[in-house]
Amino acid sequence: MNIKQVLKIVSVLLLIISFFLLIPVFIAFYYDEVWVVKSFLIPIFLILIFFILLLFITRGRRSSSISARDGFLFVTLSWIFAALFGALPFFLSGTIPHFTDAFFETMSGFTTTGASILTNIESLPKSILFWRSLTHWLGGMGIVVLTVAVFPILGIGGLKLVKAEAPGPTLDKITPKITETAKILWFIYIVLSTAETLLLLAGGMNLFEALTLTFGTMATGGFSPKNRSVGHYNSAYIDIVITVFMIIAGTNFILYFRLITGKWRNIFSNVELKVYLAIFLVAAAIIAFNLYGSVYNSIGNSLRYAGFQAASILTTTGYSTTNFEKWPAVSQIVLFILMFIGGCSGSTGGGIKVVRIVTLFKQALNEMKYLIHPRGIFTIKMSSITVKKDIVYSISGFVFLYLFMLLLTTLVVASGGNDILTSVVSALVTLGNIGPGFGKIGPAENYAFYQDYIKWFLSFAMMVGRLEIFTVLVILTPTFWKK
Amino acid sequence: MNIKQVLKIVSVLLLIISFFLLIPVFIAFYYDEVWVVKSFLIPIFLILIFFILLLFITRGRRSSSISARDGFLFVTLSWIFAALFGALPFFLSGTIPHFTDAFFETMSGFTTTGASILTNIESLPKSILFWRSLTHWLGGMGIVVLTVAVFPILGIGGLKLVKAEAPGPTLDKITPKITETAKILWFIYIVLSTAETLLLLAGGMNLFEALTLTFGTMATGGFSPKNRSVGHYNSAYIDIVITVFMIIAGTNFILYFRLITGKWRNIFSNVELKVYLAIFLVAAAIIAFNLYGSVYNSIGNSLRYAGFQAASILTTTGYSTTNFEKWPAVSQIVLFILMFIGGCSGSTGGGIKVVRIVTLFKQALNEMKYLIHPRGIFTIKMSSITVKKDIVYSISGFVFLYLFMLLLTTLVVASGGNDILTSVVSALVTLGNIGPGFGKIGPAENYAFYQDYIKWFLSFAMMVGRLEIFTVLVILTPTFWKK
Repeated sequence: MNIKQVLKIVSVLLLIISFFLLIPVFIAFYYDEVWVVKSFLIPIFLILIFFILLLFITRGRRSSSISARDGFLFVTLSWIFAALFGALPFFLSGTIPHFTDAFFETMSGFTTTGASILTNIESLPKSILFWRSLTHWLGGMGIVVLTVAVFPILGIGGLKLVKAEAPGPTLDKITPKITETAKILWFIYIVLSTAETLLLLAGGMNLFEALTLTFGTMATGGFSPKNRSVGHYNSAYIDIVITVFMIIAGTNFILYFRLITGKWRNIFSNVELKVYLAIFLVAAAIIAFNLYGSVYNSIGNSLRYAGFQAASILTTTGYSTTNFEKWPAVSQIVLFILMFIGGCSGSTGGGIKVVRIVTLFKQALNEMKYLIHPRGIFTIKMSSITVKKDIVYSISGFVFLYLFMLLLTTLVVASGGNDILTSVVSALVTLGNIGPGFGKIGPAENYAFYQDYIKWFLSFAMMVGRLEIFTVLVILTPTFWKK
Repeated sequence: MNIKQVLKIVSVLLLIISFFLLIPVFIAFYYDEVWVVKSFLIPIFLILIFFILLLFITRGRRSSSISARDGFLFVTLSWIFAALFGALPFFLSGTIPHFTDAFFETMSGFTTTGASILTNIESLPKSILFWRSLTHWLGGMGIVVLTVAVFPILGIGGLKLVKAEAPGPTLDKITPKITETAKILWFIYIVLSTAETLLLLAGGMNLFEALTLTFGTMATGGFSPKNRSVGHYNSAYIDIVITVFMIIAGTNFILYFRLITGKWRNIFSNVELKVYLAIFLVAAAIIAFNLYGSVYNSIGNSLRYAGFQAASILTTTGYSTTNFEKWPAVSQIVLFILMFIGGCSGSTGGGIKVVRIVTLFKQALNEMKYLIHPRGIFTIKMSSITVKKDIVYSISGFVFLYLFMLLLTTLVVASGGNDILTSVVSALVTLGNIGPGFGKIGPAENYAFYQDYIKWFLSFAMMVGRLEIFTVLVILTPTFWKK
């Protein structure tokens, strides 16, 4: 283990975050919220001290190569430190006076969960709300990916780091160099975010709201500057724009690269994309059918609300345009089932992810074929490529640990005296980085009422979910610390 | 496919069931319920006609060997026919006048689920209640296993049939001949059932109640002749006897064979048994700790009720001694988590089963070791035997299909307008063959209120769960019907 080296890269990552902490400062001046400025400057100052200190400690040492083990430690520490420093503006400004709450909100932001402890969002300063949504945007594509893109000459195994932050089963190398890949991903992310912002501006929104909502959409986060989430605008146009961009954000970003480079066949043959879109369409159709007549009298409105909410939950965004807890049972159950799925690999979406579910489904079908033809040989193909058995193993391990974490988190939430539904759904929507759920944490509610230890554990669950289970849990195994 | 041959063996199996249908006839005479007798004689008569008809159709044909495919079809058909004929006494006697309800109750009996549509159990004739509990006992060790034990000279691949009824990952051959194994299993089952009956008699119960409760315990079924389940007796002695025998019933029966033959080391090295007992003890301890002071004022009572309920849910029996829906949140969540686990392989318990969970857990740990030492070689050992990768694959497929069926069943239940908790738990307790759950199907409730189509689907789920997913689902794949 190379702790000093690891901390040094962490400090570089924090340096990038400190740069983004400057943006809300300008917004504070623009909106005449000068009293908030120091709440952003103090963390920037602290990060600089941390950076210089680390530079001093590791001075004279040649930057040695980093092991897989160091990679996991670096990524986990990065996320913890990012949330710690990122929470300071909320805490120091007194807008979230309790530090546990500030940390929870920030971890919820970076992990693109969108679970909030705020009871009256609109009462907060604009600069603070901007930072809140910005954490989504930074966490969506990944702060480690960003670090690798910006600082390519750190002499570190960038691929290991990116893999530890986004260890999905199909992180194709689109270019031989990981720094190039990281730059391309961030470029696509910025282009798509700009497009959504422009479309929202065209819908009559102001720049502040268009940007914050875009951050929440493109990162599949779910923080909104309004108490009633996207329902605040009550506009079919805005609902449709956000629905489309949530679906875009939940798609593998590498496919957009293929789109730019003209490799169309690659896109249409992508099984994960097809299944992802099919799940969305079927879920939206069932909900719309269920809502039509019972909640909405027009087919248009049924489709609009059903499509928005299905996209929001499937992509693990967590925006809402209405209180879906008042919908009939079937619609609620469809949303509940979507909570287990999540977006595509290589997207900003969370959850188990479609590719894993498709792989396990094909694997289960093969098992049935074996029962009928015990001597047959059946392989799994995804987009005409044979999936190696090792990957199926890894996915099976992932899903098991995911369910294990789910039940453990449920137990922790229940220990605070919460009912089964609230406990199960709280675990599901934090681990899956979704945000609002059912029961006491429904779309019209928030996480403020939870005891502190539950908030800390849920913050942990959000991080475990965002870093796709293995990265964080591996650090907790004895093998990890063995020499 | 050899449909005629398959049906012929089904008719033999029904013949055995018709023999057991004679027992309640004697009970009807003993309790002066002569009017019920014809309700048992008619199905016996129908089975005989069915048997003779099949004998006539398949006459002259040499009994050919049976394929794996035929095995799956035979087992599934056997269970459907058993429930159809087994439902007739309820239906014909008018005690359950609606056939859907009668079928549901019978399938619930044979699959040892213990979910009931009865609102006033005690109002039913004793002979009918005896038959109701007897279906548990027959289904617990397996009607196919029984057929193989009784009719060894059918010229059929007995192992294939037994495997299709109990396809757990570790059905050790304890003797080279499957008919011998089947006989030994049934022998152990009878001995243990006799022991429990005697102990219950010693507690002051009458023979009728001792027998019916024993059937429910040893089969991990859960039907009771009393409205308030085991809570009716309000006796610490009876609670303890049933707790111990539920745990015994949830243990791999092959271990009892090893016990008899003196292979003690085999038992103490059995990982599944250790984990199973550990889960029980930890769950019971957490619940007892949670109940002490909040529900019960004595440590003794806390342990008694906690132990009983933990054993009842873990082993998928479903008896209750109190309305655990009124317990505090943590106790409820622990029971909820136990619903995902189930008994040991080779036991009469249902659910996912401990051995599968242990295997997947070890597999997940190995995946984390691979992340740290990518070039290492890590195998899974269970009770000092290396688990083949194929078995891990099969288990992974099983768990995936289990969760898939769980969500599908949830959706079907919700389509009847039921809330999320009721829908999820109904799916969980029917597929896992548990019985009572939470919400509208809590321990103080029943399944009577469900619409007919939900009752049929839940009956299907109970069968899919009892036959361990693959056996029934494989029949629904196109590959199965391809020539």
